[in-house]
Amino acid sequence: MQDPAEHYFNCTDRERATFEAGIKLGTIYHQYVGIPINLTNLESLENAIRESVLVQPFVKEAHVSIDRDIVNKRQGVYKYITLSGEMMDVSLTIKYKDEEVRARLRYVPDMDYPLMYLEGD
Amino acid sequence: MQDPAEHYFNCTDRERATFEAGIKLGTIYHQYVGIPINLTNLESLENAIRESVLVQPFVKEAHVSIDRDIVNKRQGVYKYITLSGEMMDVSLTIKYKDEEVRARLRYVPDMDYPLMYLEGD
Amino acid sequence: MQDPAEHYFNCTDRERATFEAGIKLGTIYHQYVGIPINLTNLESLENAIRESVLVQPFVKEAHVSIDRDIVNKRQGVYKYITLSGEMMDVSLTIKYKDEEVRARLRYVPDMDYPLMYLEGD
Amino acid sequence: MQDPAEHYFNCTDRERATFEAGIKLGTIYHQYVGIPINLTNLESLENAIRESVLVQPFVKEAHVSIDRDIVNKRQGVYKYITLSGEMMDVSLTIKYKDEEVRARLRYVPDMDYPLMYLEGD
Repeated sequence: MQDPAEHYFNCTDRERATFEAGIKLGTIYHQYVGIPINLTNLESLENAIRESVLVQPFVKEAHVSIDRDIVNKRQGVYKYITLSGEMMDVSLTIKYKDEEVRARLRYVPDMDYPLMYLEGD
Repeated sequence: MQDPAEHYFNCTDRERATFEAGIKLGTIYHQYVGIPINLTNLESLENAIRESVLVQPFVKEAHVSIDRDIVNKRQGVYKYITLSGEMMDVSLTIKYKDEEVRARLRYVPDMDYPLMYLEGD
Repeated sequence: MQDPAEHYFNCTDRERATFEAGIKLGTIYHQYVGIPINLTNLESLENAIRESVLVQPFVKEAHVSIDRDIVNKRQGVYKYITLSGEMMDVSLTIKYKDEEVRARLRYVPDMDYPLMYLEGD
Repeated sequence: MQDPAEHYFNCTDRERATFEAGIKLGTIYHQYVGIPINLTNLESLENAIRESVLVQPFVKEAHVSIDRDIVNKRQGVYKYITLSGEMMDVSLTIKYKDEEVRARLRYVPDMDYPLMYLEGD
């Protein structure tokens, strides 16, 4: 993909790729957290998140899954809950020119935190 | 559906139904506006919105559509835009005990506004 | 306030007021859940939520507070968390013509749920 | 700031800084788009966005402004609109260890697009 914004940046292609990766993970967390869910609509939501991130620039691949166990355990009086960050596991491949980076959002138990990070080789 | 919150309310069943209808339309507008879209992911997004509102209490039926013409016209330099309220057309049937109301979110040209309203008989 | 949407509705003024109340509470929950918070920015966020709901139609009064104890207890490794529904306590007065209703969003322990309801007299 | 997530990354400090910058801009766009606004509540909203991004890791400085002219022109029948991306101008300074980057979200007329980019020297 030709990049019409290239002249706005003064960085390496790899720095650009990591910047774009950050944007996409920030987007996913803050756009979808709060959505009403139970076990019946997780597949359609995963699918919508995945297809939506693929329309953004420089996203080559995406995997999205929501933790069934957490959803199942927490759904209470009305049989649903709302999506929160620690239920999500998202893997993205971002490609900017020749640079490819893999980014991840998932709950990491040692930090008790839904971490966004770059997966190395 | 038995309603565990009934004792928190002091209103008619129909007022309750319209209150619940308002909640669901407010939810949809403010949860999904901002999602990256183009013509490739509208169907999965419509499907996710529809399935999600159906997990909320007292929602009996839901129809969701996003305006293809607006999406097609506006997508710019990166071939996508983000969802905004005037592209959405949502119809809900809310049933609380014996009372059923139909609620709608759609752009109304005479007000130039994405209106949430109750459809009468 | 004159209501330019009046002809779209076929309901009592009180039903309309409860519908509008529902919209506003649904808006608040699904717009703000996910915002990064710790004890340093709660006041500015409460203020922004309150001022924002007051620009929507038929909102006469609003009170917003976020539970300091929960925020304080949960902030982890990076000293912040993201806003979730059970931390919020929102009271609204909605006035449509001569009808006034008070609506509330708050965590109710007996249901273990952030309930939206109408406060009676 | 010590970084408890350091071992999850395999990249330069500058790549990490640009990744973090991307997260923050993605967060801001997708968290706040949709908020009801008119000229009366822009200052409190700008303030809340600014204070909120400052609680996230590695954010050293933040400036947020919303375009008064657009808000003024577009507010319609109910005297408010909802926030969209092209009204926002956000500048962030991200510092990771010794690396500092400046990131920006603003509407760029040549692309007719609310661009997120890295400001160079």
